[in-house]
Amino acid sequence: MNKFEVLHTDPHSAARTGLLTTAHGKVETPVFMPVGTAGAVKGITPQQLKETGCVLVLANTYHLLLRPGVETIETLGGLHKFMAWNWPILTDSGGYQVFSLSPLTKIDDDGVEFASHIDGTKIYLNAEIATKIQNRLAGDIIMCLDQCTPFPVDEPQLKKAVERTILWAKRAKQAHTSHGQLLFAIVQGGINLDLRTCCASELVKIDFDGYAIGGLSVGEGHNDMIKTLTHTTQHLPQDKPRYLMGVGTPNDIIAAVRAGVDMFDCVLPTRNGRNAFAFTENGSLRLRNNAHINDTRPIEAACDCYCCKNFSRAALRHFFNSGEMLGPILVSLHNLTFYQRLMAQIRQALKKNEFADWAKRVDY
Amino acid sequence: MNKFEVLHTDPHSAARTGLLTTAHGKVETPVFMPVGTAGAVKGITPQQLKETGCVLVLANTYHLLLRPGVETIETLGGLHKFMAWNWPILTDSGGYQVFSLSPLTKIDDDGVEFASHIDGTKIYLNAEIATKIQNRLAGDIIMCLDQCTPFPVDEPQLKKAVERTILWAKRAKQAHTSHGQLLFAIVQGGINLDLRTCCASELVKIDFDGYAIGGLSVGEGHNDMIKTLTHTTQHLPQDKPRYLMGVGTPNDIIAAVRAGVDMFDCVLPTRNGRNAFAFTENGSLRLRNNAHINDTRPIEAACDCYCCKNFSRAALRHFFNSGEMLGPILVSLHNLTFYQRLMAQIRQALKKNEFADWAKRVDY
Repeated sequence: MNKFEVLHTDPHSAARTGLLTTAHGKVETPVFMPVGTAGAVKGITPQQLKETGCVLVLANTYHLLLRPGVETIETLGGLHKFMAWNWPILTDSGGYQVFSLSPLTKIDDDGVEFASHIDGTKIYLNAEIATKIQNRLAGDIIMCLDQCTPFPVDEPQLKKAVERTILWAKRAKQAHTSHGQLLFAIVQGGINLDLRTCCASELVKIDFDGYAIGGLSVGEGHNDMIKTLTHTTQHLPQDKPRYLMGVGTPNDIIAAVRAGVDMFDCVLPTRNGRNAFAFTENGSLRLRNNAHINDTRPIEAACDCYCCKNFSRAALRHFFNSGEMLGPILVSLHNLTFYQRLMAQIRQALKKNEFADWAKRVDY
Repeated sequence: MNKFEVLHTDPHSAARTGLLTTAHGKVETPVFMPVGTAGAVKGITPQQLKETGCVLVLANTYHLLLRPGVETIETLGGLHKFMAWNWPILTDSGGYQVFSLSPLTKIDDDGVEFASHIDGTKIYLNAEIATKIQNRLAGDIIMCLDQCTPFPVDEPQLKKAVERTILWAKRAKQAHTSHGQLLFAIVQGGINLDLRTCCASELVKIDFDGYAIGGLSVGEGHNDMIKTLTHTTQHLPQDKPRYLMGVGTPNDIIAAVRAGVDMFDCVLPTRNGRNAFAFTENGSLRLRNNAHINDTRPIEAACDCYCCKNFSRAALRHFFNSGEMLGPILVSLHNLTFYQRLMAQIRQALKKNEFADWAKRVDY
């Protein structure tokens, strides 16, 4: 049975709304997932997270594998219980972190050996192991192990990575036995459109519950990203969700929705929040700025988040200035709420056939 | 009109329950105040703080004076609005911090000049200025500027500090014009009982809304503290609240209630919480300990705080181990809830005339 239903398609673009059914509930798309790297969205309780409008959260397999370890999370009853989050969870495969955070010690067609960035322990990951780990973590959506490449990268290396990504996806599907979980494959290929076509087509033949687009937002720039995306989604089935990994700014998200993407994750709302950077519909605010010393206004007057309903910009500036944890907490809360509201606005505009007009009006 | 009413006195000790009426609501005593040093209880939103059972919070005049400054807080509509805390607030006079945190540059009978511990700016504080500052901050309970002494201290210095504390209290009362705020004086005198008698008696003659006992818990040890306390409260009026500043552990609080104290403040629940130290009715837990690696239990099974209702000790240990902010936040929340429950248990035991028995049974 297909767990994804397209509800509305935009007459002017590849954008659509949809409904994704997971073991822990339904998810309206386009959707944004906050990142709970090590089992927690930084500084935010699950209750606060829910109040931002979040329904689906991402957790990083790589980080959880190193600390506290899969054994522990399994012993404690799985990721939902561990994180105290009783709604949908997506775990990534660990691939991105293995290739970006860890000193690699060995990679071949079977898999990859890497050294933990925490204590140097050597760890081996391949398609089967990454799948089994995610089966045991018990998230609702899990990802095939892929080979990520840096940007720029030479052609033979990129081609090899695509081949391995396809090979590993095949093996992941065979290894995946926990049928309550949705398994997504990841399309690689950098900004090489032929490689993207090839990777997408091969993965679609294997047939997955959804398709992610990886290896973007790694330095290629907005235009190349959107060009690659627009091309890639054309080679993905209409009736399966599409997930753009690690993206992005509000503008990136709007453009990617236009290109037919349904799911997003990014650390921006929390990372920027911790750095006193607030998103608003009228552009960003840097809350450490002296301009806010006596500013009685909230970050956004029309925002109904806890931060905006209770705190002035002046108080937030003071919290950052004094090193009070409440600053990062409150601005993260606002930014997460801002992102959830952005996605709700996108879904609403799509339903009303007003997405193109709405997107022209907003200026993030 | 007296703003404090003794509701119940313990037949076996000086302990009592009472009701303190402030401009922002009534406070049942004995009461514990969490410390919101710079206008925020570290890592805790006002909403979360309210859910711990907290009704009265302390803010430090010294810290707020340096950052963001009285002007700013006044411009923003006072401390309640600034902190987003619409319930009672007590501000201290700044005296303790001036004498403990700052390089002093000058002290005489008029007042004290000190250098900001942040940027070295020279600031002058005297009885009138400290009172006016607190009038402008607009807390519900404000404190007279006192001269704090270290422990141990030689007799002439202690005597001089007591004289100045009395003199400054007299001037503070005259300077205090904001009659919606309760003004408390502070009894000093170290562990010298005669000086305590003298200081208490002189302050009582001036007549304040309440009396604090300062200069304890500075190294004299539990027994000398309780001895001094038991002596001092005998020289304070029955019908005024008594506030022991900066104390303390659950055992300190129980003993001080027995000695007739009504109000407490301390950073222990939050400071210890940030350091993975949890209070429980069966003693303390150090949550970084390996013993908790796979421990599915909450900190306390019977605790109804958000942390205990949702998170295992194993998850908390993991958060501390991984440097996740959620660890300090959750354990601070638990500890604050523990302290509020402790005070509720004390009040309950007093009402039922069971305080002595209850205090014997509990073992913190």
